[in-house]
Amino acid sequence: MRRLSTVAELRAALREAPRPLGLVPTMGALHAGHVSLIRAARSECAAVAVSIFVNPRQFGPDEDLERYPRSPDADLALLEREGADYAFTPSPEEMYPPGFAASVHIEGPALPLEGAARPSHFDGVATVVAKLLLQAQPDRAYFGQKDGQQVAVIRRLVRDLDIPSEIAALPTAREADGLAVSSRNAYLTAEERSAAPVVHRALAAARDKFRAGQQNAAELEAACRGIIEASPLASAEYVAAVDPETMAPWSGRGPCMLAAAARIGNVRLLDNVLLE
Amino acid sequence: MRRLSTVAELRAALREAPRPLGLVPTMGALHAGHVSLIRAARSECAAVAVSIFVNPRQFGPDEDLERYPRSPDADLALLEREGADYAFTPSPEEMYPPGFAASVHIEGPALPLEGAARPSHFDGVATVVAKLLLQAQPDRAYFGQKDGQQVAVIRRLVRDLDIPSEIAALPTAREADGLAVSSRNAYLTAEERSAAPVVHRALAAARDKFRAGQQNAAELEAACRGIIEASPLASAEYVAAVDPETMAPWSGRGPCMLAAAARIGNVRLLDNVLLE
Repeated sequence: MRRLSTVAELRAALREAPRPLGLVPTMGALHAGHVSLIRAARSECAAVAVSIFVNPRQFGPDEDLERYPRSPDADLALLEREGADYAFTPSPEEMYPPGFAASVHIEGPALPLEGAARPSHFDGVATVVAKLLLQAQPDRAYFGQKDGQQVAVIRRLVRDLDIPSEIAALPTAREADGLAVSSRNAYLTAEERSAAPVVHRALAAARDKFRAGQQNAAELEAACRGIIEASPLASAEYVAAVDPETMAPWSGRGPCMLAAAARIGNVRLLDNVLLE
Repeated sequence: MRRLSTVAELRAALREAPRPLGLVPTMGALHAGHVSLIRAARSECAAVAVSIFVNPRQFGPDEDLERYPRSPDADLALLEREGADYAFTPSPEEMYPPGFAASVHIEGPALPLEGAARPSHFDGVATVVAKLLLQAQPDRAYFGQKDGQQVAVIRRLVRDLDIPSEIAALPTAREADGLAVSSRNAYLTAEERSAAPVVHRALAAARDKFRAGQQNAAELEAACRGIIEASPLASAEYVAAVDPETMAPWSGRGPCMLAAAARIGNVRLLDNVLLE
């Protein structure tokens, strides 16, 4: 595996890479979710690049940029083990040099849910993903369906700016008890960790209702919210049945994503299920 | 010459194009300035694509989008004559389909001068140029130095978003009397047309002072402004000595662009000279 820390090095190395090239953009603190992305890239592509960059522009001023989990040595060992060909680990100064002035602004699927809770978060995501895609020019880039709205935003970004890469979304990796794997799970205390699976349990219960014939968005949202709120440690920030592509409220027909943001103690957890 | 009107057609055609590929993005109404760009591309590249697209997103609500000069038949004939290989003529719906939600926002060199006079103009320019560069993926794209701030904005865009194309800027094409060639010159009445060369005459006079040793930005600006204002038909909207890369006020050292925006009747004309 080659480790590259500047865009010039990355481009020089990738010029010789066999195609198709897969890119897995990450913020490090790699876990089973990332592993499933890397394995998908490995099985579909002739070369696999993984970027590790904790992107300051997608954190709000009061958010957890400073304490976001970082494990560079373990990450690089994992990438070696999983057979990645290139590890790209740029510094913030390499990504945003002095005088940096152009960014991506995105509305549409970026406006509701996380976009409402975290102003400018998705502009930061879209800017760094555009940069990474144009730096590496992969044939395909891999993201986790766990951040379902992020997937919708990135698909919209790629379509609207005509970025010549394909976007693949992979199913959410889960712990044995259903909790969606996330770097931020490390923030949970032992007690909170035992309570956390309620988010997925609530989403799965709503999905059961859907499969049993319930097609009313408000009923599905209320069923999910009720289960989360019944847990003494959890509170639901939002539960929303939305169109998985536009993030607009689900019309009652066609594909539906039921998305939830919940607080367990001070930790904010996201999860979603596709209703089908 | 092949004429293409969708991104899919363009990409399919360019996949077979010899390299290097040169792109000349235009808004049509082609003139001697565009010809010099096409000839430069023709002499430096193995294949030349020219886009013709009057980009609604770079016009303000009170600007001249509707009456902007259009001459599609003459433009295509000119491209044939100049040996362009591909003419890309997308519709507004092809460039901005329903649901379009991602755009480029640019600050830095986009903020003063034209950016102050035309809010959101450069966001519109940056968005369409990013799209065209990512649609065609040229090795090099050609722009006129006549829009010197636009060149600075596009260089910043390409650097900041890591767009893998080189930007070439070519000297301003001028009429025999010095007037910078521009599609908007067609708006001038005969009387205004006779007065219009004052803009370049004023810039050239300031350049003469610079070459004679005047290094004070305010003096150079005042000399230029005085000559424009002395013309009964002309008024200077701004005259500014700036760093050609950042568009910040010129420090008195290093490269300097003296830029002017003037009104001749109801027509707004831009011009600039490099002081060196």
